[in-house]
Amino acid sequence: MLERAVFFVSDQTGVTAETLGHSLITQFSGQHYRQVTLPFIDSEDKAREAVRTIDAAARDGVPRPIVFSTMVQPELREIVKESAGLHLDIFDEFLEPLATELGETPQYRLGMAHGVSDIDTYMKRIEATNFALANDDGGISRNYDAADVILVGVSRSGKTPTCLYLALQYGVYAANFPLTDDELESGTLPGFLVQQKRKLFGLTIAPDRLREIRKERRPMGKYSSAQQVRFELRESDKIFRRYGIPNVNTTSFSIEEISSRILDSTGVERRVRP
Amino acid sequence: MLERAVFFVSDQTGVTAETLGHSLITQFSGQHYRQVTLPFIDSEDKAREAVRTIDAAARDGVPRPIVFSTMVQPELREIVKESAGLHLDIFDEFLEPLATELGETPQYRLGMAHGVSDIDTYMKRIEATNFALANDDGGISRNYDAADVILVGVSRSGKTPTCLYLALQYGVYAANFPLTDDELESGTLPGFLVQQKRKLFGLTIAPDRLREIRKERRPMGKYSSAQQVRFELRESDKIFRRYGIPNVNTTSFSIEEISSRILDSTGVERRVRP
Repeated sequence: MLERAVFFVSDQTGVTAETLGHSLITQFSGQHYRQVTLPFIDSEDKAREAVRTIDAAARDGVPRPIVFSTMVQPELREIVKESAGLHLDIFDEFLEPLATELGETPQYRLGMAHGVSDIDTYMKRIEATNFALANDDGGISRNYDAADVILVGVSRSGKTPTCLYLALQYGVYAANFPLTDDELESGTLPGFLVQQKRKLFGLTIAPDRLREIRKERRPMGKYSSAQQVRFELRESDKIFRRYGIPNVNTTSFSIEEISSRILDSTGVERRVRP
Repeated sequence: MLERAVFFVSDQTGVTAETLGHSLITQFSGQHYRQVTLPFIDSEDKAREAVRTIDAAARDGVPRPIVFSTMVQPELREIVKESAGLHLDIFDEFLEPLATELGETPQYRLGMAHGVSDIDTYMKRIEATNFALANDDGGISRNYDAADVILVGVSRSGKTPTCLYLALQYGVYAANFPLTDDELESGTLPGFLVQQKRKLFGLTIAPDRLREIRKERRPMGKYSSAQQVRFELRESDKIFRRYGIPNVNTTSFSIEEISSRILDSTGVERRVRP
């Protein structure tokens, strides 16, 4: 099948254009896409270079490129729109109705504000990331009093990446505690965790998926055996039920979805907004 | 000033609606916003509940809410649009031109595909995150042969969160190495780093900003003193010049921007797309 080029063009990182474009193109599965991000297109020269790149992808016999763009400055947007391709730009579509509603002229400023609030946001995300690192996998700090949420689950159920994502994206203080033989065989949690019961949130996962993930780490042995994996997940489910710990099955979710479901389910407030 | 409610409504995590909405509302600084995310609105009942929440924010004398939504299913989108507020939905605006261009009917499926490629993406992000953790702060693993990029910089210049973001967002294998007195006083890098010279990327930061960040950790003492911070940054700049290490000043950038600039500048290929 012919490959269609999809460009994400931005005067900033391109993350917004990618997020937008990805939501849209995944609605059409009968296509082959080649995805290219062109970030930091913040001058006329760079905009013309982007046009050349896009036009080069629009050769004869190839379907024309699709261009998702987030170009704040109208004059740069106009240059990019001279290129071959279907152009979909959020500022084109949404800035005018928003300006009318707010009764204010847009400032056409690049990306995020670089003011005091940004420094504050940066600090909060860094502090939350450091917290996640210090309180990873039952780590030495165990500063659970300061935690917003404490994830519990067996090894490789997704605790660490979820904690880090919660920290980086939302500034949430997320600790995690691994369920090991001590807990799984006794069916009980240690006292210092029971004290924090209202902060606990469980992660579970389908046995086949967990085996697949564990085999990446250690292909052989008990750790990734069907019997061991089934035992651990059965016992961790029992612990969740026994202590009434809300939990989510992560099998078919991305890290973003798991994180978002945890916030939604626990009501934990994010400390920053992206 | 009157606070205006801004809702991000989604049948999935709400991350796309937030990203889109944030890019737009930051263009208007003369406003006070109260931001609320309503994720996982994936049934008629939940859509009606969202309508009640939005309508409750549209009281007399308060400017009407703004609703950024990413609702794939037209019937749920229609319900949400019954609420008071200015409605801006990406599927409303962009799905039809895209369907016409691609010659394909959209599938109206929720969020990301839950197929094999997702498992693959999940694994890659997890492996990259584990790599970042194992190779953080000159950690024991020093598996630099496998690294895509190795960040160098003084303490608190942003190495760790940037490495983790590169891993979680892009699946990139990012290690980091802190410049300490050993390197700063001798002006040289250890041999195992020089061997990886083409992978090195430097982070620098304004002295005042670094002091501010360090004071959060240790308010007193040499670590956050003006003299020490200036010395470290001056010497790290010399090292970057001496070895020809490309670098970015992180002072006024978010973690996303730093990460994106590193990819753009080094040409390191992302291993996953969000």
